Amino acid sequence: MRTCGIQIDYTKMMAACIGPEHGIRPAELRGIARRGRTAALSVAAAVRTGGLGFSKLPFAGAVADEVRRVADEIAGEVDTFVVLGIGGSALGAAALHAALAHPFHNLLPREKRNRRPRVFVLDNVDPEFVAGAIDLLDFKKTAVSVVTKSGGTAETLAQCLVFLKEMRRRLGTRLTRRRVVVTTDPERGALRAFALREGYRLFSVPPDVGGRFSVLSPVGLLPAAVSGIDIGALLDGARAAHDACLAPGLAYNPALLLAALQHISCVERGKTIAVMMPYSNALAGVADWFRQLWAESLGKRLDRAGAVVHAGQTPVRALGATDQHSQIQLYMEGPADKVITFLGVRGYRRTVRIPAAPPGDDALDYLGGATMDDLIGAEQRATALALAEAGRPSMTITLDRISPRALGALLYLFQMQTVFAAELRGINAFDQPGVEQGKRLTCAMMGRPGYGALRRGIARSDRRCASRCALSL
Amino acid sequence: MRTCGIQIDYTKMMAACIGPEHGIRPAELRGIARRGRTAALSVAAAVRTGGLGFSKLPFAGAVADEVRRVADEIAGEVDTFVVLGIGGSALGAAALHAALAHPFHNLLPREKRNRRPRVFVLDNVDPEFVAGAIDLLDFKKTAVSVVTKSGGTAETLAQCLVFLKEMRRRLGTRLTRRRVVVTTDPERGALRAFALREGYRLFSVPPDVGGRFSVLSPVGLLPAAVSGIDIGALLDGARAAHDACLAPGLAYNPALLLAALQHISCVERGKTIAVMMPYSNALAGVADWFRQLWAESLGKRLDRAGAVVHAGQTPVRALGATDQHSQIQLYMEGPADKVITFLGVRGYRRTVRIPAAPPGDDALDYLGGATMDDLIGAEQRATALALAEAGRPSMTITLDRISPRALGALLYLFQMQTVFAAELRGINAFDQPGVEQGKRLTCAMMGRPGYGALRRGIARSDRRCASRCALSL
Repeated sequence: MRTCGIQIDYTKMMAACIGPEHGIRPAELRGIARRGRTAALSVAAAVRTGGLGFSKLPFAGAVADEVRRVADEIAGEVDTFVVLGIGGSALGAAALHAALAHPFHNLLPREKRNRRPRVFVLDNVDPEFVAGAIDLLDFKKTAVSVVTKSGGTAETLAQCLVFLKEMRRRLGTRLTRRRVVVTTDPERGALRAFALREGYRLFSVPPDVGGRFSVLSPVGLLPAAVSGIDIGALLDGARAAHDACLAPGLAYNPALLLAALQHISCVERGKTIAVMMPYSNALAGVADWFRQLWAESLGKRLDRAGAVVHAGQTPVRALGATDQHSQIQLYMEGPADKVITFLGVRGYRRTVRIPAAPPGDDALDYLGGATMDDLIGAEQRATALALAEAGRPSMTITLDRISPRALGALLYLFQMQTVFAAELRGINAFDQPGVEQGKRLTCAMMGRPGYGALRRGIARSDRRCASRCALSL
Repeated sequence: MRTCGIQIDYTKMMAACIGPEHGIRPAELRGIARRGRTAALSVAAAVRTGGLGFSKLPFAGAVADEVRRVADEIAGEVDTFVVLGIGGSALGAAALHAALAHPFHNLLPREKRNRRPRVFVLDNVDPEFVAGAIDLLDFKKTAVSVVTKSGGTAETLAQCLVFLKEMRRRLGTRLTRRRVVVTTDPERGALRAFALREGYRLFSVPPDVGGRFSVLSPVGLLPAAVSGIDIGALLDGARAAHDACLAPGLAYNPALLLAALQHISCVERGKTIAVMMPYSNALAGVADWFRQLWAESLGKRLDRAGAVVHAGQTPVRALGATDQHSQIQLYMEGPADKVITFLGVRGYRRTVRIPAAPPGDDALDYLGGATMDDLIGAEQRATALALAEAGRPSMTITLDRISPRALGALLYLFQMQTVFAAELRGINAFDQPGVEQGKRLTCAMMGRPGYGALRRGIARSDRRCASRCALSL
C-alpha cells in the first residue's frame, strides 16, 4: 500500500492515558468493531456498485485532464480568477488554496506567483464585501467561475448577474464568453440552461456527488489548477486513501477508526463538540471545509428508521498556536464536552530561525537558536499534554508535509470518516432537509412568484410574535 | 442619552414566540432581575472606585491623542505596519481593521488607502505563515508593533527577535529604533526592559486591563489609528455604551439583559453553545474577538466560592449568509444546544444592485432589480424565522451602520455583558489559570532553564501513555 504520509495518534483518547471518566476503554472500541465491520462492508459494496458518488472522483482522470487544460488556458489570459460560489461550491477551493498556495499569494507580484492568477472566493452576498472586491478588479484581466451544484443558489446567481453585466459592459459579449466558466448539474438547473444559451464553458458536478463532497470534482479542482496546484497529485493521494478506507476493520481502516472514536465520544461521553485545531495557518481552510462536511452530514432530526433523534456533533474550528490564547482556558477548565483533533505537520515547508536574544534576558534566552518550527511543535505537544492531564481527550493527525498528495488523502479520509460516522449513527449523510425552510422564506421575502402563501404565513408569524422584545442603545 | 445606533431584539428568545421548551418565560427574566440588579450595583461601584480597569479606557483622551500622534508619524514614513501579537494583543486590532477598513485594504494601491499603510496582524508562530509574510515586506518601508501585555509571551517574543534582527541588518540600529513600537506592561516584563534599553517607543497596557479587555487601549487603538480609523469616534461610542451599561435594571441595561438571556439559556435550557453570526464580512472579526472574551472569561473550573463548577459556554463564530450553506442544517435539526446571536446591519456602506436576469428565467427573475442588501437582509430574517419555527432561540443585534462610533459601543457592550455574565454565574471573569500548564510545558520542552523537573515529569507522562495508539496511511 502506498503511504500518504499521515499518522493518526489517538493515545490521548484512551482511558489508560486520560482516565476512565472521559477516556475510551479498549473494550468499547472492540464493542463497536462489529457494527464498524458491517458499515465497512456496506460502504465497500456501495463503492463497488458505484453507489458512493464522491468515491469515483479520484479516478476521473479524463475530467482532471480537461480541468487542467481549461485552467492553463485561463491562467494564460488573466491575472485574477474569481470563484462565485458558496458552501460546498467554495469551501473546498478555499481549503486547497490556503493549504497549497503561498500564504499571501494574492499579495505577491505576478512573477512570484509563477505567473498564475490571483484567486478570490466570493462566498457571500454582503454588498460591502462584493463591492470591495469589484473595486480591486481589472475586468479585462479577470475570469469568473460560477459554481452552483443545483444551478439555483440565490447568492451565486445574484453574484453571477452582477459580474456578467459588468463584464459584458466592459469586454463585450464575445470576450466575456472566454472569461466565464460554469460548474453545475450536468442536466438540470437555471444556470446550466443559461450557460448553454450564452456559450460559456461548462463543467459538471456529478449528480450523485453532494456539494460538501465535491472538492475533488471540478468544483475544487478548477480553481486549484488555475493557481498552479498539481491536481494530479491531489487525486493520487485521494486514491491512496481510498484503498486504506476500504479495509474491513477498525485496526486498519483510519476513516472507520476516526468515526468510531468520535461516535463513542459523542454518544457515550457527551462530547457534543468536535474541535479541529490545525497547528498550521495553511490547514485552517481544511478545518472550515470539514465544518460543513461534519455539521451538514450528521446534524439530522431523523434517523434512517424515521425516529426523531436530533443527531449531530458541532464542529468547531480553532487554530494553533493562536487559539491557545483564546480558547484553551475554556478547553482546559470549562464543561467537559469537547474532543479536540489536532492537525500537525512534521516538516513545515519553511523554516524560521529565532536569533539569539540580547544577553542577560532569561525570558528570551531559551528561544534564541531554536526554530519557529521547534516552538510551534512544542506548543502543540504541550497543549495536548496539558489537556490530557486535565482529562480532556484529543487525537492528533500528523502530515509528514503539506503537499497536494497529502491534502488529497486527508480530504478523502475525512469524507470517508463522515460516511462511517453516519452509518454508526444510523442516519443519512447525504441530505440536508433543514436548509429548505430558510431558502423558501427568503424566496417569499424577496417577492418570488409562487411564494404568496408563504408570504402571508410570514405576516401571520410576525403578528404572533408581535409583542416585540427589544432594547436600544 | 446619546444613542449608539444599536438595537437588540430578543423576541425569538421568548416562549411566546418559540414555545416553552426552549423559549424563556418573562417570569424567568423577572426571577433573575434581582440578582441582576445586585450585579449592576456592584459593577457600578467598581466603576466608580476605578476597580474595573477597562471601563476607564473610553475616558483616556490623552492616551488617544498620543496614539494618534505616533500613528500619524508612522503612517507618514512607512507603507506597511506589522502587528506582532497574539490573543488579546491581536484580536481587537484585527476586529477593528476588518470592520472599519476597506475589505481588501491591503490589496489596494496606496492612493486608494488614503495613503495609509497596509496592516498585517501576525498572530501565529507557524513558520510558513511568518516566512510568507516576510517574503512580502520591504523592510525599508515597514514598521513593527510588538504587543504583549505580560511582556513574556513566547510567540510574540520569538517573532520580535526575528523581525528585529532582520530590521537591524537592513536598516541599522538608528532607523530600526524609529520603526518599532512596543506595547506592554508599564512596569514589568522582559519586553519593557528590552524596549527601554533599545530606545523603542513605548505604550502601556494598564495593569488592571486584561488582554482580552484591552481593545480600547493602545493595543487596539494604535493599529487602528495607523490605518486611518477615527479612534476618537471609537472611544466616543464606548463612552455612550458605558452610560447605558450602568443602568440598574434588566429593562434598561443592554449588557445585563444580554448576560441574563445567555445565562438562562445556558444554565436552564442547556444551550452550551453561543453562536455569533454576523451578516457582514466586516463584523466577522468582532465574532472572533468575542470568542476569546466569552470563552476565556467564563470557562472556569472554580467559582468564587471555590466550588468545582466547570462553568462556561462555548462561543462559536459563524458568518451569514455564507454559513447557511455550512451550519444551518445542524442548527435547525441537530441537538438543541445553541443560542444564536445575529449581528445585522441596517444600512450597509455599499450598495450592489442586481441586474435584471435574461428573460424567461423564473429562477433568476425575482433577483433582478433587487439589491444585494435586500437579499442578505432577507436571508438573515428568513434564517432567524426558520430557526424560531423549529424552536431554536436567537436574538438579533442590529447596527444602523458600521461606523467607528457604533463599533466602540458594540465592543464595550460585549465586554460589559461578559462582566455581568460572570457575576450571574458567580465566577471571576478576569483570570485564566487554565492556560498556565500549557505554557509551562512549552518552556520545559524548549529547554528553558528552571524547568528541569517538569521536563522529567513529561518523560514520565510519556512512559505512562507509552502504549501508543496509532495508525498510519
